Amino acid sequence: MKENKIFIGTDTVSGIAPQLLEEISKASKLKTLPYGNDVFTKKCEKIVKNIFEKNDLKIIPMVSGTASNSLAISSFLRSYGSIICHENSHINKDEGGAPEFFSGGGKLITIQNSLGRLRARDISKKIEEINFKRKLNPVLSGISITQLAENGTFYTLDEINEISKICKTNNLYLHMDGARFSNAFVSQGSITLAEATWKVGVDCLSLGATKNGALAAELIIFFNKKLAKEAQYIIKQTGHVISKTKFVSAQLNAWFEDGLWLRLASKANKKALYLTNKLCEFKELELLYPVQGNEIFIKMSNTSYDKMLKKNIIPNLWGKVGNEHVIIRFVTSFETTISQINEIIRRLKTTF
Amino acid sequence: MKENKIFIGTDTVSGIAPQLLEEISKASKLKTLPYGNDVFTKKCEKIVKNIFEKNDLKIIPMVSGTASNSLAISSFLRSYGSIICHENSHINKDEGGAPEFFSGGGKLITIQNSLGRLRARDISKKIEEINFKRKLNPVLSGISITQLAENGTFYTLDEINEISKICKTNNLYLHMDGARFSNAFVSQGSITLAEATWKVGVDCLSLGATKNGALAAELIIFFNKKLAKEAQYIIKQTGHVISKTKFVSAQLNAWFEDGLWLRLASKANKKALYLTNKLCEFKELELLYPVQGNEIFIKMSNTSYDKMLKKNIIPNLWGKVGNEHVIIRFVTSFETTISQINEIIRRLKTTF
Amino acid sequence: MKENKIFIGTDTVSGIAPQLLEEISKASKLKTLPYGNDVFTKKCEKIVKNIFEKNDLKIIPMVSGTASNSLAISSFLRSYGSIICHENSHINKDEGGAPEFFSGGGKLITIQNSLGRLRARDISKKIEEINFKRKLNPVLSGISITQLAENGTFYTLDEINEISKICKTNNLYLHMDGARFSNAFVSQGSITLAEATWKVGVDCLSLGATKNGALAAELIIFFNKKLAKEAQYIIKQTGHVISKTKFVSAQLNAWFEDGLWLRLASKANKKALYLTNKLCEFKELELLYPVQGNEIFIKMSNTSYDKMLKKNIIPNLWGKVGNEHVIIRFVTSFETTISQINEIIRRLKTTF
Amino acid sequence: MKENKIFIGTDTVSGIAPQLLEEISKASKLKTLPYGNDVFTKKCEKIVKNIFEKNDLKIIPMVSGTASNSLAISSFLRSYGSIICHENSHINKDEGGAPEFFSGGGKLITIQNSLGRLRARDISKKIEEINFKRKLNPVLSGISITQLAENGTFYTLDEINEISKICKTNNLYLHMDGARFSNAFVSQGSITLAEATWKVGVDCLSLGATKNGALAAELIIFFNKKLAKEAQYIIKQTGHVISKTKFVSAQLNAWFEDGLWLRLASKANKKALYLTNKLCEFKELELLYPVQGNEIFIKMSNTSYDKMLKKNIIPNLWGKVGNEHVIIRFVTSFETTISQINEIIRRLKTTF
Repeated sequence: MKENKIFIGTDTVSGIAPQLLEEISKASKLKTLPYGNDVFTKKCEKIVKNIFEKNDLKIIPMVSGTASNSLAISSFLRSYGSIICHENSHINKDEGGAPEFFSGGGKLITIQNSLGRLRARDISKKIEEINFKRKLNPVLSGISITQLAENGTFYTLDEINEISKICKTNNLYLHMDGARFSNAFVSQGSITLAEATWKVGVDCLSLGATKNGALAAELIIFFNKKLAKEAQYIIKQTGHVISKTKFVSAQLNAWFEDGLWLRLASKANKKALYLTNKLCEFKELELLYPVQGNEIFIKMSNTSYDKMLKKNIIPNLWGKVGNEHVIIRFVTSFETTISQINEIIRRLKTTF
Repeated sequence: MKENKIFIGTDTVSGIAPQLLEEISKASKLKTLPYGNDVFTKKCEKIVKNIFEKNDLKIIPMVSGTASNSLAISSFLRSYGSIICHENSHINKDEGGAPEFFSGGGKLITIQNSLGRLRARDISKKIEEINFKRKLNPVLSGISITQLAENGTFYTLDEINEISKICKTNNLYLHMDGARFSNAFVSQGSITLAEATWKVGVDCLSLGATKNGALAAELIIFFNKKLAKEAQYIIKQTGHVISKTKFVSAQLNAWFEDGLWLRLASKANKKALYLTNKLCEFKELELLYPVQGNEIFIKMSNTSYDKMLKKNIIPNLWGKVGNEHVIIRFVTSFETTISQINEIIRRLKTTF
Repeated sequence: MKENKIFIGTDTVSGIAPQLLEEISKASKLKTLPYGNDVFTKKCEKIVKNIFEKNDLKIIPMVSGTASNSLAISSFLRSYGSIICHENSHINKDEGGAPEFFSGGGKLITIQNSLGRLRARDISKKIEEINFKRKLNPVLSGISITQLAENGTFYTLDEINEISKICKTNNLYLHMDGARFSNAFVSQGSITLAEATWKVGVDCLSLGATKNGALAAELIIFFNKKLAKEAQYIIKQTGHVISKTKFVSAQLNAWFEDGLWLRLASKANKKALYLTNKLCEFKELELLYPVQGNEIFIKMSNTSYDKMLKKNIIPNLWGKVGNEHVIIRFVTSFETTISQINEIIRRLKTTF
Repeated sequence: MKENKIFIGTDTVSGIAPQLLEEISKASKLKTLPYGNDVFTKKCEKIVKNIFEKNDLKIIPMVSGTASNSLAISSFLRSYGSIICHENSHINKDEGGAPEFFSGGGKLITIQNSLGRLRARDISKKIEEINFKRKLNPVLSGISITQLAENGTFYTLDEINEISKICKTNNLYLHMDGARFSNAFVSQGSITLAEATWKVGVDCLSLGATKNGALAAELIIFFNKKLAKEAQYIIKQTGHVISKTKFVSAQLNAWFEDGLWLRLASKANKKALYLTNKLCEFKELELLYPVQGNEIFIKMSNTSYDKMLKKNIIPNLWGKVGNEHVIIRFVTSFETTISQINEIIRRLKTTF
């Protein structure tokens, strides 16, 4: 008998946390105005102001991560503008050109390195190059970083601080793609949400809940309130105003309630560490980056990869290294169980 | 004691039909691939092919009505293109310029009339004008009609047929904004879904479920399959691929199941008729259009309108007529109850 | 023997005034920086500041009228914005959707009337409608008028004043499409250039020289200097920076020199009056609008029109009236001669 | 007394070749239809078909090099599309984001190398990467190469052939930015124009005349005729239809006449070689690339550069190498004289 498929390649396969589903159900019964003028959205903004310790911020609830990033970015990226991001960033490689589209032709200027995160000194060098040809280049308007970064590691506060200093010097906005911000945050140790974001200079955060317990809920938080003005028009024109916004905000409210979101993220991260430890026992598998959230990147031979697939373990095929090796990604979620992980390991042991 | 507010101005304030919520809950437990490659979406396409009696069609599940319209339209509206629509159409007046944006600068050429629906002869005249200046005008690429139309009436099959003949002659695509298609359909009498759409020449239908029982679910049906090719890229680039698409398709599947959607629409329509009959007894209220779905348009004096508001009856303020009168809209939904309507009438009697 | 063709339908068939050609020749010999940093462009700005009696203005020399209009308009028309213009305006009917494209999806909201010019009271009514649905409509950002209007008449200063008051009240910018501004100006009687433009509230003027003596030269004058900032990036991104800008500015300098441009416009206008007087003698021809520049609009039967064409007189076919009549346009230019007009009349006499 | 400035940094400072100016003057007298329907443009297409030995091609005369590139590219680059080009290419670094804008958000995917030209093997590798993430990446639609390349060298026919093979395999279009195509062509030895372009798979060529004798004239040649269909609408919508197109085509006709354009290019190239030989005698100057056209790239110390500037020799400052050195560019044109070069050398000898 064939074993069941284990989808362990992305946290996007996860379901809805019960607390969120229940809040959706409640919201269904309560009549309130559509298009974001509802009591759930108002409550959400209050919660966010409270936990991020900042009164002058604006929020926009969204249902798509790509849209959340693109909308945030296009609040400062004009058609004749450009932003700097990592070559491997989701906005550059995985969003079908959405930032370029939302901005009507803006340009992503990329920096490649093996670290997986932008380094201040590379950014400075790139800016120098751009300034050299200022009149002929698209106008540089911001920098976008990803927390967790694309390789599953997090930016330290010092790293972000260095980057945001460059932003201040060069009159640039700083965007943070936080699709897995909660996973990064609970890993960063005892810091506050304020310290993790606006206190180190983040102007807007695209905070993702969908991978961590929601049906479909993302939140743009504009710490720099003036950026929200432009965004309110773009969200309408790009068709991202959800008519029954209350259902998005309801999810977020339940998610934030009593720190549920951070507990869910902790769960996922712990499972990632547990899984990593087990995986490291296999000589066939080479861990590529420190596991600082819920993502694990592994290099392995094509042969080993095929064996794994045959065992119905479905990771995410991340890349190729030459013709003989692949990079795969494992991602745990709040739903991942110890027994599921043990089952993965059991299967691997029977084939490696 | 103040009476509670009755939101009767739009069906967008309605909640989720229980069958749909239950299906969401089930989908949460079933692991399947994200980004539309899931079993729910596959099932949805099967259902649609079946009930619309057409095998070569393509579907795209969406969560926003504006996006559903704009994406469908931009499958044939190029940046240098134009489409004809009614001056009062939702795409022209209520979507913040989304069709123009999705197409990168396309143009809506509008026709105004008091009928509320496009007439074949007005379209022909407009096309003649456009052809006269062919080289200098944006290239005409399609026509968009709304079913229910903006004034709550439906296009007859004959009317659509006449328009689609013009489309054929002039090599144009025909789009139908079906935000309230189900309300129109159950009013149209004993016709099939096929007859109501592709058999009278509709190339793509933006079918809305959100106003009629869903949390957030819209469906683009491309009867003309080749239009779907372009759309699959645009949906990605506009950020409208919902990562957990299964939750959208799950709603739709429950909605279609055993004709639930049509029963919900019938409920809403019946309440609209019931409410209309009651309202017609007030000499202060003038019915503007035949009620052929779930929308009722009423002309009344400013004074009467103010009185109504004071009774906490919240219709949609639709327009002004001179300085003394307003047009308001009542919209019933599947949730509207007889007792709610009676309560509205009771309050009106105490004030008029 | 067949008579030679007389192209009298547009001033775009005219050649280059000798003074401008000579200045091009001179500019060819003088080495100076490319891309607008040349001595000719600097001189041009000085001239414009002088004759328009305003020191804080900015100019951008262009080679295309469509681009000149679109660039000026997109200095304030955002993708989610809209402007009001006449239904028959060149930007709406004859520029292939360029304003929509330059702005990435902006919307032209049109007003139709038989006057050929926007009226303040129609604009006010339209704005009221738009404000009524403010959140759902593209944001209104400006008004564009055409001087000479599309029917060859000019806006009086009072008319412009009324419109610009509406602009001030509603925080809108006022653009003037001045493709034939010089023809309008010399007709308006003893007023100054300042009075004809910024003193009545015009924020930017797209001033055309191509129809009136240039090879290819248009000039955007930003009386409202802050609009020029945005424009400088858009001009680059839309590919409208001409590398050897000196040749554009050189034309303009010769054109402005000693009021040559106004003399050329006067010549054209005088010929238009002369031609009009002669045409009015034919009962077959009905003059539609007062001739206030160099354009003459005539209604005539299809039969008469065919006779005219057979005489190799080539007007511009402007429109149709029912099935039996057409509207044609005659346009004179600085090159039109009395003998040419007499020849037209001679031919008409032999056929009517 | 201060010595006069010698602008030797770009061929864009050059004037108009007398034959072209004369043809403009002639065209001014001949009446013909505007907007490209003129006899000069028809003649131009005939000439191009003849010298490129291909009957099914289409031409579009332009006045801007940036627009010529962007329009050609956007004939196949959709908003959700991407093209591969060199990191240093003009379209990527020097056109203010125009290709992105013309295509409504298309993406340039760049390859960096020290060769200055795209290599087939780098392209293949990049395509493999892109295909790996096909669904999430903008759709790859073409490749753009520059002839002369950005470092002044030319692609050999073999190199282009290898690239165009990749295009064929991957269903991509091949664009050639030929701003200095004539300089490259006369350097390539005894090949035909056909061999240099469509016979090695070039689908469209943006051929520049402005730097080589024209006032403002560029020509898009669509060897792949079907691409021209899309382009004809985009050119209108981007405002690049010049009303008196005859003046652009007239320049081109005189330019092509009896091979004038190639003689002008040869002149420029010969002067470049002469200058290079002289410059190589200075130990302060290091030649960076082989001189295969009219461009010379020199590395020198900041001190030497300052000395040069003080002698009123104005090259183009191309880049920096560390903090101590700069790269400068000399460009000769058809107007550059031996005595001018001798004068440059004389001045350098007095200061180095």
